Amino acid sequence: MSKARPTIADVASRAGVSKGAVSFALNGRPGLAQATVDRILAAADELGWRPSNRARSLSVSKAFALGLVITRDPAVLSSDPFFPAFIAGVESVLAPRGQALVLQVVSAGEDEEAGYRRLAQDGRVDGVFLSDLRHEDPRIDLLSELGLPAVTLNRPEGTSPFPAVILDDRPGTRAVVEHLLELGHRRIAHVAGPPAFVHATARSEAFVQTLAAAGLEPVAIEVSDFTAAGGIEATKRLLVLPQRPTAIVYANDRMAIAGLGAAQQAGLTVPDDLSVAGFDDSELAEFVHPGLTTVRADPYRFGEAAAHTLNQLIDGSGDVADVELPPAQLVVRRSTAHLEES
Amino acid sequence: MSKARPTIADVASRAGVSKGAVSFALNGRPGLAQATVDRILAAADELGWRPSNRARSLSVSKAFALGLVITRDPAVLSSDPFFPAFIAGVESVLAPRGQALVLQVVSAGEDEEAGYRRLAQDGRVDGVFLSDLRHEDPRIDLLSELGLPAVTLNRPEGTSPFPAVILDDRPGTRAVVEHLLELGHRRIAHVAGPPAFVHATARSEAFVQTLAAAGLEPVAIEVSDFTAAGGIEATKRLLVLPQRPTAIVYANDRMAIAGLGAAQQAGLTVPDDLSVAGFDDSELAEFVHPGLTTVRADPYRFGEAAAHTLNQLIDGSGDVADVELPPAQLVVRRSTAHLEES
Repeated sequence: MSKARPTIADVASRAGVSKGAVSFALNGRPGLAQATVDRILAAADELGWRPSNRARSLSVSKAFALGLVITRDPAVLSSDPFFPAFIAGVESVLAPRGQALVLQVVSAGEDEEAGYRRLAQDGRVDGVFLSDLRHEDPRIDLLSELGLPAVTLNRPEGTSPFPAVILDDRPGTRAVVEHLLELGHRRIAHVAGPPAFVHATARSEAFVQTLAAAGLEPVAIEVSDFTAAGGIEATKRLLVLPQRPTAIVYANDRMAIAGLGAAQQAGLTVPDDLSVAGFDDSELAEFVHPGLTTVRADPYRFGEAAAHTLNQLIDGSGDVADVELPPAQLVVRRSTAHLEES
Repeated sequence: MSKARPTIADVASRAGVSKGAVSFALNGRPGLAQATVDRILAAADELGWRPSNRARSLSVSKAFALGLVITRDPAVLSSDPFFPAFIAGVESVLAPRGQALVLQVVSAGEDEEAGYRRLAQDGRVDGVFLSDLRHEDPRIDLLSELGLPAVTLNRPEGTSPFPAVILDDRPGTRAVVEHLLELGHRRIAHVAGPPAFVHATARSEAFVQTLAAAGLEPVAIEVSDFTAAGGIEATKRLLVLPQRPTAIVYANDRMAIAGLGAAQQAGLTVPDDLSVAGFDDSELAEFVHPGLTTVRADPYRFGEAAAHTLNQLIDGSGDVADVELPPAQLVVRRSTAHLEES
């Protein structure tokens, strides 16, 4: 087998220049004499230096851009309050540094992989945010292979070479269920998000475990898709169960608000006939009638923390630690109430 | 030392034409006599106007990315429904093509100029969207000089070498005012957006002109800033006027919804004591109580159209025409009602 891949140091030594000069030349940054650039490129060629990986982490913020690949329908950007607020938090860190955010919406599979490869190519970004972690997420290995610095939103399964910014969804979900138990509810259902997402299953598991700790089982768990339409369908299915739930815990506000409307449409009064709770504390939650009991997650702060962490990594400021954000908090409004004995 | 790089103004002066004409010629836009185009290109050549810039508009999609520079507080991305929906519309066109959106939030002035220069550098994007057009907007000349293809959201003042995607705000505002006049209102006030923005003044002017056509003058015009806090302050000032308005037209939903709350807080019933109308038909508009009468602008479609147009320009598909979107439509809900004689 051939020896180890040549490094920037090898190229520098062959060309008789500093590693910094190699980095500048390979990244096309100005400031070197053309003859020097030519000599460096020739040395890199002769050594078979691969332009993709190492240089990136050595060069200082050469792209002045960070990347976010979203593997969802583009409409999620306007329909889900997480991304606009997360991006706003990221931009609040990037703006003073003159950095840009490269945003790419892709479909799952080949498209997604191509999306990350494109960002890694030609030093288009200095690092990426990994959101919407999935079970057995193929992106961890992909990004390791691409040599692209990354920060994960929450901790992926298995080992990961990347720092994580963590916002634990479970205490918030637990608090919602405990709140409903205190109000006397025993027939509680859950409308879950897509089980491929780690954060969706974290919420479902916390739901089930909190009920189990009280010696209860869910009336039903409807697997849905985080959309309003999905929330309406799931709610309709729950409301025709022989043992109708007295409370429904939704995995996000969007489904909860749509479900609230579906319940009202079906002639139920919320919270007298049915208690409803969401997750996000999106802006709408406060304004719907009755105001939605939910869990406040603060995606703006999530974005800030993720951007700070990714920049630390890119700046090479030594050991970059995981960041644990305060867990999402229960916000009690009017959509949940004491169970009326009937 | 060599002299400064020639500018568009130098080329214009040498060719004996306007800067706008130079922009048209260098960007390959139609509408100039061929002799004029030839003279301009010759002048550009003689002055050594940098052909690398010219090349950009001729080359085909080399960056596979489009740029959007937002000159506002980063929080606008989560607080103003326009941008998430606009970006979602843009991404719906970019995603199938494997293009990315490079998003940069900057403050006004030098930062903004640097932002565009950075995008133009090294072919980081193939073109940009120009949003939030301002009066005497310096970015038109800047982008002409940078040779970066652009599409403007609405038509800028003066000549512009760039195609525009137009969503005329005036018919919607006119419809709101006419709706209030039909309901019997005569004391109508306006809470305007920042006068630096072309779209804010378009709405204000349509407001004033529609009242004038009915032989009326505004009770008051409060200049505000499109934020909820600004909407509350402006509303408070209007409600203590000796001749209190019976209706308020806000330049966006965010200010209107905050104003609705401020009026209710002040003990007024909407719409019995005060009619309130917004602009945007943001998602909240339907859910607040009473539902907000507003104007539906469809920023998602705006984003789609802008992305299609910019890609046409970048693909060099000949003549790229302005796109005129259907104007925003009045949406009547419960926040406006017949004036009760008191």
